[in-house]
Amino acid sequence: MRTSQYLISTVKETPADAQVISHKLMLKSGMVRKLAAGLYSWLPMGLRTLRKVEAIVREEMENAGCQEVLMPAAQPAELWQESGRWEQYGSELLRFTDRHNRDFCLGPTHEEVITDLMRNEIRSYKQLPSTFFQIQTKFRDEVRPRFGLMRGREFLMKDAYSFHVNHQSLLETYEKMHAAYCCIFDRLGLDYRPVLADTGSIGGTGSHEFHVLADSGEDDIAFSDSSDYAANVEMAEALSPAGDRAEPTQAMELVETPNAKTIDQLVEQHSIAIEKTAKTLIVEASDEIEANFVALMIRGDHDLNEIKAEKLSEVAVPLRMATDEEVRQAMKASPGSLGPINCSIPVIIDRSVEKMSDFGAGANIDNKHYFGINWGRDLELPKVADLRNVQAGDPSPCGQGTLDIKRGIEVGHIFQLGTKYSQAMKATVLDENGKAATMTMGCYGIGVSRVVAAAVEQNHDDRGIIWPEAIAPFRVCIVPMKMHKSVRVKEAAEAIYAELKAKGVEVILDDRNERPGSMFADMELIGIPHRIVIGERGVDSGTFEYLNRREGEKKEFTKEQLFEALGV
Amino acid sequence: MRTSQYLISTVKETPADAQVISHKLMLKSGMVRKLAAGLYSWLPMGLRTLRKVEAIVREEMENAGCQEVLMPAAQPAELWQESGRWEQYGSELLRFTDRHNRDFCLGPTHEEVITDLMRNEIRSYKQLPSTFFQIQTKFRDEVRPRFGLMRGREFLMKDAYSFHVNHQSLLETYEKMHAAYCCIFDRLGLDYRPVLADTGSIGGTGSHEFHVLADSGEDDIAFSDSSDYAANVEMAEALSPAGDRAEPTQAMELVETPNAKTIDQLVEQHSIAIEKTAKTLIVEASDEIEANFVALMIRGDHDLNEIKAEKLSEVAVPLRMATDEEVRQAMKASPGSLGPINCSIPVIIDRSVEKMSDFGAGANIDNKHYFGINWGRDLELPKVADLRNVQAGDPSPCGQGTLDIKRGIEVGHIFQLGTKYSQAMKATVLDENGKAATMTMGCYGIGVSRVVAAAVEQNHDDRGIIWPEAIAPFRVCIVPMKMHKSVRVKEAAEAIYAELKAKGVEVILDDRNERPGSMFADMELIGIPHRIVIGERGVDSGTFEYLNRREGEKKEFTKEQLFEALGV
Repeated sequence: MRTSQYLISTVKETPADAQVISHKLMLKSGMVRKLAAGLYSWLPMGLRTLRKVEAIVREEMENAGCQEVLMPAAQPAELWQESGRWEQYGSELLRFTDRHNRDFCLGPTHEEVITDLMRNEIRSYKQLPSTFFQIQTKFRDEVRPRFGLMRGREFLMKDAYSFHVNHQSLLETYEKMHAAYCCIFDRLGLDYRPVLADTGSIGGTGSHEFHVLADSGEDDIAFSDSSDYAANVEMAEALSPAGDRAEPTQAMELVETPNAKTIDQLVEQHSIAIEKTAKTLIVEASDEIEANFVALMIRGDHDLNEIKAEKLSEVAVPLRMATDEEVRQAMKASPGSLGPINCSIPVIIDRSVEKMSDFGAGANIDNKHYFGINWGRDLELPKVADLRNVQAGDPSPCGQGTLDIKRGIEVGHIFQLGTKYSQAMKATVLDENGKAATMTMGCYGIGVSRVVAAAVEQNHDDRGIIWPEAIAPFRVCIVPMKMHKSVRVKEAAEAIYAELKAKGVEVILDDRNERPGSMFADMELIGIPHRIVIGERGVDSGTFEYLNRREGEKKEFTKEQLFEALGV
Repeated sequence: MRTSQYLISTVKETPADAQVISHKLMLKSGMVRKLAAGLYSWLPMGLRTLRKVEAIVREEMENAGCQEVLMPAAQPAELWQESGRWEQYGSELLRFTDRHNRDFCLGPTHEEVITDLMRNEIRSYKQLPSTFFQIQTKFRDEVRPRFGLMRGREFLMKDAYSFHVNHQSLLETYEKMHAAYCCIFDRLGLDYRPVLADTGSIGGTGSHEFHVLADSGEDDIAFSDSSDYAANVEMAEALSPAGDRAEPTQAMELVETPNAKTIDQLVEQHSIAIEKTAKTLIVEASDEIEANFVALMIRGDHDLNEIKAEKLSEVAVPLRMATDEEVRQAMKASPGSLGPINCSIPVIIDRSVEKMSDFGAGANIDNKHYFGINWGRDLELPKVADLRNVQAGDPSPCGQGTLDIKRGIEVGHIFQLGTKYSQAMKATVLDENGKAATMTMGCYGIGVSRVVAAAVEQNHDDRGIIWPEAIAPFRVCIVPMKMHKSVRVKEAAEAIYAELKAKGVEVILDDRNERPGSMFADMELIGIPHRIVIGERGVDSGTFEYLNRREGEKKEFTKEQLFEALGV
């Protein structure tokens, strides 16, 4: 390809509304353009990368034995009513009526359509297991579309759905898909981690997210420093601190704390270590118990994990913190002075709190705390549970090493659905005994356009994008110096261009009549991995100035060295 | 691929709501499934064919120097308001509001989006000409979606748009695209014709439709039997009959015709040849003339061409026939007795009518006709124009041969847009003199999913589809006889399967434990071009039973003959 015949749409200004680096760089490099909030057009350069990601995803899905289908974006409301999601799904579901006033939505996902399709096509257990995938445009009417391709309203997704005669078969396919996802992200050349994920309100029995690691990620991922263990912080188990609880050394005393409304103020004003303080949080109780509220206790330096709290039978779902008014009614004291002593509602404490001794907590009397509290001696040990988010330095729940925490961008999600949709939609097959059996399902997504943005978040410098080889729009760029004035430079540039093309290398020749600095800047912004500069001097010496975009050090190469560097 | 690991979804029953053969066969062969009116899911077998069509279209667009982009399906109303089409476009434009109550549509076409995109990206005449294409899902909210993939509501389309500094450049690209389209349909293996088409209400200066010839086509195409000339019947010029008008031989006489309300009745009851009769049609006049109505005359055996009539300055657009009441007011007579004698409104006659002599027409007196009318003698010759549809046997307007008429399915359309969108949306570039110049545009569409259906309409027999080689889901099927009982058959089938796969042939091995007749029927219905049957007898003799789906004659081939037949 020649730049003179190709739309190079680089811009110098950093777009005002672009907050994250991938959004900025994809606009500046002319990969995409905004059409409206959350809607982007892919320009030729960007689309080349998108198609490469798509091709790798397709190949690995086929290698894993999946069959490709293509379902409509427009979906009739009836199917969503059948699954119950027409009511459950919020305003992110883009709904519309057709000219005959029938209800439709633009699919954010296709569980309903594929389940409807396969309950008709699959008749016998002999046809199972089967996995179907599509690479298709999805719509999600985000309330605040942002971060460019990271959270758009229309995006390209690979979604796959597997069907099984039983759970064991689902587990086998789930493992295969896990492996296929690893192949995909390996081939894409991204630093990623599969992490244990919460199955959320869908239920189901197991789930992994695939995260591309990048400082700008929206999710916290916890890793063991000594094993493969990785989990979304939401999901990572916080172990009980090692060893037994220390014996009491202090008497319990009631202390005036008029100016200590927060843990930080308490620590500062009363010379108590934060690890010796406990927070008491009041949340709405579930119908399972008589009380209206439950008190959850975590250590002063810990954060409540709401997903863990929601798993307690005593706690209402979704989790709701009590209002100040409700707290005063339930506890006879204000937030800031709450604690386990003389507490009339059920108390559940975190594993770390169980191991505390001589600790301070609110007295359930306004402006007073108890210090020197000890379980067993001053009050009975309440119910204990894992209630907190893990922190860097915590022991890994896998039993090996300690946890580190990094930011990740979720680009894939695999999910053991179970029978949620097949049961609601009566998707059955005849089993070995000729009886109707509800199919078990799995679902497996990759945000194809999001992968492109995540790759940029992970691979860039202050001059622009640094594409991984496998998804660069072009692998090599040739930048001739003043080829419009020097016939020799032009001939040398054309010769190496033709030779590389003949070898199947995706190469772009910058034949625009621009200043060298401007051409260099464009190619670096666009992120072409390999650059070859052709100048008079090189023509004389028969060498090429070579620059690897990632390594950044210029080298003088003979043609053989150049081909070796490019692996051709 | 093996059928045991592939979704074979053939059905025996002919679907009740399928009217055309492609719809029936694509459902029966399990290529597609209906999700809702006009919405279809592509099953794996069908998607393979769709992707092959897509790949050929993409390759030829790239060969023609077009650059691929991808624009959103969801489009903001503002752009359509800018072009004026938000008001003009009818209910086929699927409109919706997002969660913030902003107006959007799902694009049936992308002129507005690409013009908006390129008015920002293209700055200089040096970047022109440029052509951009996408292969993308379109929506058209048809009032009565029908004929399966032929007229669906959601469909895959290739749309391309070219930008030029002047009309001459547009013409050059238009020719290139015409040639690229011929390459595409040649490679697809379809019997097609590029035909001159009407530019309709869009205006513009030139247009060709590409039609796949099939009896079930919705359009009439007129062809010369001696040249390349082909045009949509709407567009084909009807030449004036050769030679001069014959001299009068009869006197004009007023005849009582109380029972002749139609031309057929007149011919039957009064022994007059239909070629000696003329019909007079009253249509609304344009503002250009004083009269409210205009009388159009065509020969009794001809049909009015409304598009030609609309091109007359005297005729209102859109064409509207006068009501019976309006006819009586304007002509003082009822429909069925109208003619040119004593007519008080302007008369325009077809070229054929100009050459008539001694002819009959209504007398503008109820229940009376004049016979023996002659121009010049009985009344002045009115304005003459081309007003009728051509018929088979007419001389070709190209000057060579006579016209034949066949049915066609429109699968492509290329169009010289001119400045319709660029002017409305102020899409300018700097020209050679540094002045802003409105860009000239062309647009070029192919209905990718429609091509699949049209291919079936043209290529089938009573056993099913007969795919052209280039777009068959698989080129070869291997049907072993009782391989689940005979190890020798199984081994022979697996061996030739492996050998063909190694040669890069797309082959499917029917390893299901089904009756041979059922496997034959499935593969014929699906339309695999080449069938190889492996049985005990062939294993003994080292031969293969080969059947070419289109030719239909079984042959005993050695392996060498087989490879030769497959071209590998």
